[in-house]
Amino acid sequence: MLVNGSPSNVISIRDRGFLYGDGVFRTLRVTNGQAQHWLLHYQKLQQDCAAIAIACPDFALLTAELENLLRNQTDCAIKLIVTRGISTRGYAPSTKTTPTHIWDVAPLPDYPAAWATHGIKARLCQLCLSQQPRLAGIKHLNRLENVLAAGEWNDAEIAEGLLMDTDGNVIEGVRSNLFSVLNGTLVTPSLLACGVAGVQRERVIGWANSNKVPLEIRAMSWDEVINADELFIVNSLNGVWPIRELEQRHWKEFTMTRRVQLELGEMQ
Amino acid sequence: MLVNGSPSNVISIRDRGFLYGDGVFRTLRVTNGQAQHWLLHYQKLQQDCAAIAIACPDFALLTAELENLLRNQTDCAIKLIVTRGISTRGYAPSTKTTPTHIWDVAPLPDYPAAWATHGIKARLCQLCLSQQPRLAGIKHLNRLENVLAAGEWNDAEIAEGLLMDTDGNVIEGVRSNLFSVLNGTLVTPSLLACGVAGVQRERVIGWANSNKVPLEIRAMSWDEVINADELFIVNSLNGVWPIRELEQRHWKEFTMTRRVQLELGEMQ
Repeated sequence: MLVNGSPSNVISIRDRGFLYGDGVFRTLRVTNGQAQHWLLHYQKLQQDCAAIAIACPDFALLTAELENLLRNQTDCAIKLIVTRGISTRGYAPSTKTTPTHIWDVAPLPDYPAAWATHGIKARLCQLCLSQQPRLAGIKHLNRLENVLAAGEWNDAEIAEGLLMDTDGNVIEGVRSNLFSVLNGTLVTPSLLACGVAGVQRERVIGWANSNKVPLEIRAMSWDEVINADELFIVNSLNGVWPIRELEQRHWKEFTMTRRVQLELGEMQ
Repeated sequence: MLVNGSPSNVISIRDRGFLYGDGVFRTLRVTNGQAQHWLLHYQKLQQDCAAIAIACPDFALLTAELENLLRNQTDCAIKLIVTRGISTRGYAPSTKTTPTHIWDVAPLPDYPAAWATHGIKARLCQLCLSQQPRLAGIKHLNRLENVLAAGEWNDAEIAEGLLMDTDGNVIEGVRSNLFSVLNGTLVTPSLLACGVAGVQRERVIGWANSNKVPLEIRAMSWDEVINADELFIVNSLNGVWPIRELEQRHWKEFTMTRRVQLELGEMQ
């Protein structure tokens, strides 16, 4: 672990990241000593910092730290957290605060290989995401909704829970973005009111655009999701996972999902 | 500062309070070496912990630590934070996690005495609170909305910003609860969809009930607020502050507000 470039596994109890969740983060997969899609992650970090007016640490600085961290790593998960830093009492952010940045290295989660090939079992969460356009899309540190949703089940066979918002739109998974295939068109929920816009979601969107695969980003109802021809979820650690079971529905054909997995190289 | 009973000003970067804002807190005023309304604060802490299934530290343990901390203090602000603690990777909370509890002592904020006597200038924030019934009322560590709202102004003459929710109901101040007087009735916004239910709000409600002052807890529109006969805000550090100016409206009579200040002993 590194805190502001120095080996440490602690932060101040007055860091605003702790007091208010006043910060953003990225989770990266490291494969064969390489941080996957680091540039895309940095760009998202930069956007997310800008959205809540945190000064994003320099690309060259973070890249040098990352390379240093990876010197003795082959495969692992790396978390990068940037907070607004330590300030005087109170919610009001100060422009004088120096951001804190933290790297944390952990083993990759050990999921069954069949989840990528044969698909996962998913469920619908009871918790509904609140709508906050000012924070929508941002991977910020206010993640209590995800904690509550993830706490709804403890059946290890269920790999993911899907989340609707308070208006009944399906938004994402607890730790993934969602895609569906409807009559040959890729459809993914718009994240204008809530949800986290991940790097893998962006990669799938970019791939579809480059390959002239029809793609729509829009509100999705539960009916559309449960009646989709295919469903898959994506995130940076696990790549692309088909959904084979969701509530009472089962899927066996993953034609488009396979194509996405292969062409994006995301068959983890 | 104390972390889990020992002198420290740091926590693990893997504490869920930091990673996800997975925790709750209280802010107490200490006057003449006495923590004001400690029992009420503990009860709220217990309720908030229960609402997100964190095991609340024992009352006797916390009281002993608090008394120890206050041995050399006269007037100060004390923050008590309880997080779910350190767990393995991922959002899902584990029942095996031991909560972390933190005490932080800081000087009292130095506000003009006239704010309690002559009232404050307040504004309406642009940020609208999201609606999440599962977290409504809880003083949890996901406070980015408060940070964004507090960042909307830097005029030191403006003591507080009022917040509406995404449906246009007035809910609270950035760091206070709101009361209005409408034809002799105290009206305070209901906090079923968002907002933080503070100890001073509860004290005012209790006082009104005991003294047969008519009180309503319900949705409040901006029109009602701006046309109220009196407005006041309450929090644990500052007690009761009348609002003398809000956007274009000015108030000069604070009859009910004075009564609340005097009878609750909250003329800080």
